[in-house]
Amino acid sequence: MRDKASLKNVIDVASGRVEADFCISGSLVLDVYNKEWFETDVLISQGVICGFCEKGEGTAKQIVVAKGKYLVPGFIDSHVHIESSHCSPAEFSNLVVPCGTTTVIADPHEICNVCGLAGLDYMLEDSKNTALQAFFMVPSCVPATPFEHSGAILLAPELAKGLRNERVLGLGEMMDYPGVIAASPMILDKIWEAKLAGKLIDGHSPAIEGKDLDAYSAASIHTDHECETPEELKQRVRRGMYVMLRQGSACCNVLGLLKGVTSDNSRRCLFCTDDRQPKSILKEGHINNNVRLAVEGGLDPIEALCMATINSAECYHLYDRGAIAPGLRADFLLYDDLKDFSMPQVYVGGVLVAERGKIITEQRPSDASMVSGKMQVKNFSVDRLVLPLKADWVRVIDIISGGVVTGAGEAYVTVKDGKWRHDAKQDILKLAVIERHHGTGNVAVALLRGYGLKGGAIATSVAHDSHNIIVCGDNDEDMVLAVNHLVALGGGMVLVKKGKILSDLPLPIAGLMTGLKGKAVAARLEELHSLAHEELSVNDTVDPFMTLCFMSLPVIPTYKLTDMGLFDVRKFDFVPLEL
Amino acid sequence: MRDKASLKNVIDVASGRVEADFCISGSLVLDVYNKEWFETDVLISQGVICGFCEKGEGTAKQIVVAKGKYLVPGFIDSHVHIESSHCSPAEFSNLVVPCGTTTVIADPHEICNVCGLAGLDYMLEDSKNTALQAFFMVPSCVPATPFEHSGAILLAPELAKGLRNERVLGLGEMMDYPGVIAASPMILDKIWEAKLAGKLIDGHSPAIEGKDLDAYSAASIHTDHECETPEELKQRVRRGMYVMLRQGSACCNVLGLLKGVTSDNSRRCLFCTDDRQPKSILKEGHINNNVRLAVEGGLDPIEALCMATINSAECYHLYDRGAIAPGLRADFLLYDDLKDFSMPQVYVGGVLVAERGKIITEQRPSDASMVSGKMQVKNFSVDRLVLPLKADWVRVIDIISGGVVTGAGEAYVTVKDGKWRHDAKQDILKLAVIERHHGTGNVAVALLRGYGLKGGAIATSVAHDSHNIIVCGDNDEDMVLAVNHLVALGGGMVLVKKGKILSDLPLPIAGLMTGLKGKAVAARLEELHSLAHEELSVNDTVDPFMTLCFMSLPVIPTYKLTDMGLFDVRKFDFVPLEL
Repeated sequence: MRDKASLKNVIDVASGRVEADFCISGSLVLDVYNKEWFETDVLISQGVICGFCEKGEGTAKQIVVAKGKYLVPGFIDSHVHIESSHCSPAEFSNLVVPCGTTTVIADPHEICNVCGLAGLDYMLEDSKNTALQAFFMVPSCVPATPFEHSGAILLAPELAKGLRNERVLGLGEMMDYPGVIAASPMILDKIWEAKLAGKLIDGHSPAIEGKDLDAYSAASIHTDHECETPEELKQRVRRGMYVMLRQGSACCNVLGLLKGVTSDNSRRCLFCTDDRQPKSILKEGHINNNVRLAVEGGLDPIEALCMATINSAECYHLYDRGAIAPGLRADFLLYDDLKDFSMPQVYVGGVLVAERGKIITEQRPSDASMVSGKMQVKNFSVDRLVLPLKADWVRVIDIISGGVVTGAGEAYVTVKDGKWRHDAKQDILKLAVIERHHGTGNVAVALLRGYGLKGGAIATSVAHDSHNIIVCGDNDEDMVLAVNHLVALGGGMVLVKKGKILSDLPLPIAGLMTGLKGKAVAARLEELHSLAHEELSVNDTVDPFMTLCFMSLPVIPTYKLTDMGLFDVRKFDFVPLEL
Repeated sequence: MRDKASLKNVIDVASGRVEADFCISGSLVLDVYNKEWFETDVLISQGVICGFCEKGEGTAKQIVVAKGKYLVPGFIDSHVHIESSHCSPAEFSNLVVPCGTTTVIADPHEICNVCGLAGLDYMLEDSKNTALQAFFMVPSCVPATPFEHSGAILLAPELAKGLRNERVLGLGEMMDYPGVIAASPMILDKIWEAKLAGKLIDGHSPAIEGKDLDAYSAASIHTDHECETPEELKQRVRRGMYVMLRQGSACCNVLGLLKGVTSDNSRRCLFCTDDRQPKSILKEGHINNNVRLAVEGGLDPIEALCMATINSAECYHLYDRGAIAPGLRADFLLYDDLKDFSMPQVYVGGVLVAERGKIITEQRPSDASMVSGKMQVKNFSVDRLVLPLKADWVRVIDIISGGVVTGAGEAYVTVKDGKWRHDAKQDILKLAVIERHHGTGNVAVALLRGYGLKGGAIATSVAHDSHNIIVCGDNDEDMVLAVNHLVALGGGMVLVKKGKILSDLPLPIAGLMTGLKGKAVAARLEELHSLAHEELSVNDTVDPFMTLCFMSLPVIPTYKLTDMGLFDVRKFDFVPLEL
């Protein structure tokens, strides 16, 4: 309720003195507090649920007959990187609202790594008028590591600035868990800013346990979405953390964690998607997909619906939503049945915004000029891809399919005139990372085994977490063409075959997102994947872009390549190519 | 955690780099989040729980061996009027902390009716250094009605001032539920101040249902402690309200509501005491008594303990307590067994503050001069007690024993020279209310039937909710003596028999509380009760003081007497004595 007049209106409608805007009549309403269904009419006025009443008893300007339908609160995605959809927040809203997601807590970690707080500002602005209610966490780990050049550095003072926005609920996932456990001063400064602001801190604590987990949770880390086992879930819940059951495109934990969710601890369990591609959203849905999987996996439907609604609202102190009750926002879903949780009628703020899987009024992306043109590449040419080698026994990055971990490979390679030469008999390719934020001219080159590519190059400006340009190819000319085309596009993904651009997906918003429709993005991505496999022979077991985009993330073992060189995550240091 | 250094200390201790202050070793710890017991060592440093560890694994300066004991979070009383104990907050802490209550949400409704915001200030000050962690709600209904003179009027601007204090969590129980349901502008102003401050609003909604309950809950009323039936509980929970199971000295709802508490809705159920006399506290306990009764009534002990701890903490957004988990306050109880929940070892902020039912370091009451001397009685004499009557067929207030409701009685009385005369054959006595806040000189006189008193008078300055002086007697001289003595005491309770003071309890703090020990207060109250029955013949079925102190509350049916005259609650207006 935005002012005293709207408070008065809600009371007046509830008590029957003033007619409601409309009434949803006769549906079975989910009471998330008593965990039961009850049949009632629901009165709505000025976007707020005002009250319940016996059938026909209330007065409303309009009656929506909903006999036999199920009315549940709108779903909340507790943790999502919108950038992973490659769609702008406005288009992301068009994509996920028809799935029943009405609120998200988004962590703009990717765009802030490129644009700093301007990235947050853009995300806030582009989602200002969307049907989707987007809240944000200000990313806690920009840059993710000191071993690469990102577009920005967000220290405590900058985070404090971001935390002042009322749509910012706290600090984004605190990925630097070693820093938290070590009580690093820089991390403490960041945590303290969130506490001073009275805001929350999201966690990211893969596999940590015992004393480390005590230390991490003692630092006021409020959530975790990296649990992999029921026991990990239980240990985090025990320490007062909320645990999210994640169902992204790549990382899928709902079924694996379900055994850990009991009627005793479910109030501390939530759902999230983290990273989800538009194809997955269009095909399987969004948070409704988590709900469906959980119910199929044996969870009581009411329990699953509570995890998608009230539990998240409580976790994030969003006290105006998460339930169907007087005085709360009229964000709700109407289902004909509860079979698969697809395609509800979706109301946000008392307005029907989606039905039959379609958004009713599409939101157009706003001006993105503040976060476009982020391709500051200097002094790049074919010369920069030369790979001098003093020996032929070298380190290579081994692709391990199905994940983001790489192997620490070793190989004999062909060296001529002190330079590496591609050998068609070996599946070893040149991989380069080109700094794109500050025009440092940094280019680092290394060798990648197991990608399979032949007769071309693939480049992307989506490259976690600093999002420099990654390019891979079997000849320097195609690699240069791919990079130059990528820069000309203002960012994106590019396939080159024998001197020609095969296809591309422009991502002009920070080199990460596009203003295109989600469907178009999904279709183009599918095309790029097919071409990569069919025209460029990328190995079938390898996801062409997902594999590349994690090659420069120097927190995940084993060998990684940043714009500063080849990195051995085990040693937490750079290493030469030569063994 | 008060600063960055203490945040660092907690992390350092949790991760084992720094020795803990002490370790509670080997107890069964209540995990309120998973609802289970687990055996562990608990490390505590600087008043904060830092972590768990296997037996003997942690390093601590001191080991508290607790093998076989039960460790649970400190109990929270979600709604209490400390004034009803007649003890100052400091002494109240000495009384309830040994029972395991470590946090209270107190509503200083009584003292603020006498002293305005100075009453709140005094309560904050006197409880500043107590073992008991006292939070407050600023009373929403001062005065309770416009039909009496209270010591203060708290409108929205004054409430806003009170709401600024960080120990004030919101608006106290919104007793004017008709005003809320009617959307009265004065009430909306008050509610809006709480919402602007981002704070909560406690409720008080006896027996209301349907549309009225919708309107009441739509107004952001967060809690209710007036439920009488399981169905009422369910309906309030359904609307997003937290419901308290109250066990006061007079109003006892735990057993009656227990059937309404399910494992599905218990997270919205809490415990409170509301009004509890020192005798009840000393004899039966405090919130531990609610827990004991609930468990005896069949509630699962873990469920009951969660209602006494984490549920209240969540309800009142007290995120630093309510559980045993890293980073939370070290407020906890150690029990040898879970038989009757009496006499735990009580730790507050990591310090052992009570054991074997005794507080270790008694807190002394602070200076109360700002709220003493509140007996501004002017122009009072025996003449003011004259009761002129134009007829002998009159209204009398009928006592209905066992409650606070009175009957609308009618009687023929003796009238001589136009004045009422006491008739020893009738159990009808003079009852007077004397304004004591502003020296208005207001004295109202009426007739009371069923009290039984003979040969004396009883007076009290505890008289809900405006706390004027109430006096009852069978002769004017003893009544005057009782009032004059009461004024001389600075407030309290007085018994007079045939021209002599029989006994008294001075209550110099606003005429409501004393700096005496709780035990002394309980003993003196018991003496007063015995003397009232034995020496003054007050009927055995009547509680001498409880009955009198509700005689001037003009919101409870039927006839009541305020300093402004005889009031008929059915008509919501004053009525003459003569029929």
